[in-house]
Amino acid sequence: MTEAVWINESLYEAWGQRFRVLHELARVRTPYQDIVVFESETHGRVLVLDGVIQITERDEFVYQEMLAHVPLLGHPDPRNVLIIGAGDGGVLRRVLQHRTVTRAVMVEIDGEVIRLSKEFLPNIAGEAWQDPRGDVIIGDGIDYVVRAPAASFDVIIVDSTDPVGVGEVLFTDEFYENCARVLTADGIIVNQCGVPFMQSDELRETSERRARFFPHVSAYVAAVPTYVGGFMTLGVASKGHGIETDATVLRKRATRAGILGTTRYWSPEVQAAAFVLPPYIAKCLPG
Amino acid sequence: MTEAVWINESLYEAWGQRFRVLHELARVRTPYQDIVVFESETHGRVLVLDGVIQITERDEFVYQEMLAHVPLLGHPDPRNVLIIGAGDGGVLRRVLQHRTVTRAVMVEIDGEVIRLSKEFLPNIAGEAWQDPRGDVIIGDGIDYVVRAPAASFDVIIVDSTDPVGVGEVLFTDEFYENCARVLTADGIIVNQCGVPFMQSDELRETSERRARFFPHVSAYVAAVPTYVGGFMTLGVASKGHGIETDATVLRKRATRAGILGTTRYWSPEVQAAAFVLPPYIAKCLPG
Repeated sequence: MTEAVWINESLYEAWGQRFRVLHELARVRTPYQDIVVFESETHGRVLVLDGVIQITERDEFVYQEMLAHVPLLGHPDPRNVLIIGAGDGGVLRRVLQHRTVTRAVMVEIDGEVIRLSKEFLPNIAGEAWQDPRGDVIIGDGIDYVVRAPAASFDVIIVDSTDPVGVGEVLFTDEFYENCARVLTADGIIVNQCGVPFMQSDELRETSERRARFFPHVSAYVAAVPTYVGGFMTLGVASKGHGIETDATVLRKRATRAGILGTTRYWSPEVQAAAFVLPPYIAKCLPG
Repeated sequence: MTEAVWINESLYEAWGQRFRVLHELARVRTPYQDIVVFESETHGRVLVLDGVIQITERDEFVYQEMLAHVPLLGHPDPRNVLIIGAGDGGVLRRVLQHRTVTRAVMVEIDGEVIRLSKEFLPNIAGEAWQDPRGDVIIGDGIDYVVRAPAASFDVIIVDSTDPVGVGEVLFTDEFYENCARVLTADGIIVNQCGVPFMQSDELRETSERRARFFPHVSAYVAAVPTYVGGFMTLGVASKGHGIETDATVLRKRATRAGILGTTRYWSPEVQAAAFVLPPYIAKCLPG
């Protein structure tokens, strides 16, 4: 009998999750990061970047639904959507589910993430790669928002790694300032802000930065099974009014967009409730 | 340099969390279970029963606040409270924080859990062990509810391990039937129902069982950092009306009980929002 192989997540030095590995599918070092894809016993296939779990087939619905549907349904009429990162294609798929969306531009810096996801995680993006409304660019999201015309997107979704390594520049003043310029008058930006129980500075600092360029800054929570440590927070900022919307309005918008009944974590009521923050998380927000 | 020592949780065979150990404080085999207490690098002191993480000093507030405050504030006037399990004393402490409570009986089957908690985890229970309103019994919770007079408690809190090993009998028809008898007319019972993403049968089966003896069965969620796998569910059943209460009423009750402002996870709004279940969890409930 051969000994079981485990992959230990290295996000935190002295605590974390581990997976028993059925077999490794890919292990690649790119100019940007180390990428591992493996088949787990418990969670289907798993994508790991620089030792940090990014997505598993089994629980991806939680993160993707909450990252995509909340801003798209918090906005009254989102047509043009910019996605930064998210090379696995899962956010692109959820965005293009909205029949109200006419164009989704996805900018991923590391083409190897896209290539490996297409090969080994085809169910994450489904048919999204072929959708004519989608425009997949291998390039730098920072540069993209510098060059993009003002008021050209209704929603920006930043699906980055944590603010270390390749994702760090997506948490800067310059980046948020450009995002504010690129967004339309009612525009909304959302980005993942980590797990505050373990990474409270991430929510605190990005909220402060976003407050310099957006009149409305808030956050909502999602309990993502493989982002361990309790609630993860998704930081949201908007140029017009706040995006907190009651469930009745959300239900109407979701019906129009074709989302209602397609989800396993999101619902109109879950979206409304997700903005209720436990005090230990609320204290990380400004004001 | 000596090699780092890790403790791997064994709740699930092929996935789980691990802690780097500063030092082990106790390792005891009782007639009921294996008990380990260790000092972790990241989460303070940690109590482990049969290989499963029960409580850590750093995140215990999440579970304890939601297990105790939700039923006690969902009830209009809780005076007599029965706690089964919870040998660390954390639930007892949260229950006795309510100045409306006149008596809290705690029945823990394994006296070693209490002894080791008093010695190594004194901050979990605080002064609760000395409170004259508390009555700590080392005994079998099943027997206790068989013998207890009818209508003698307003709230029963079952803080058990999962329905394997010593905790299994706390998930049976006979137990729930006796609990229904022991509760007053508006009585409420709450018990932990595991993490549905990993253990969906636990919520499904206990909800079905409770529905045989209680007119109102529901569940609420809490994102407990060290109960890994997304939301944990707390199953709740009541003899009178449902316990879902709006935040305005909860705020008044919490003020009267002396709870408002003492919590880090619970708030009136968090309690109301916690009953909003993602569809993947809601489908485990009957009806």
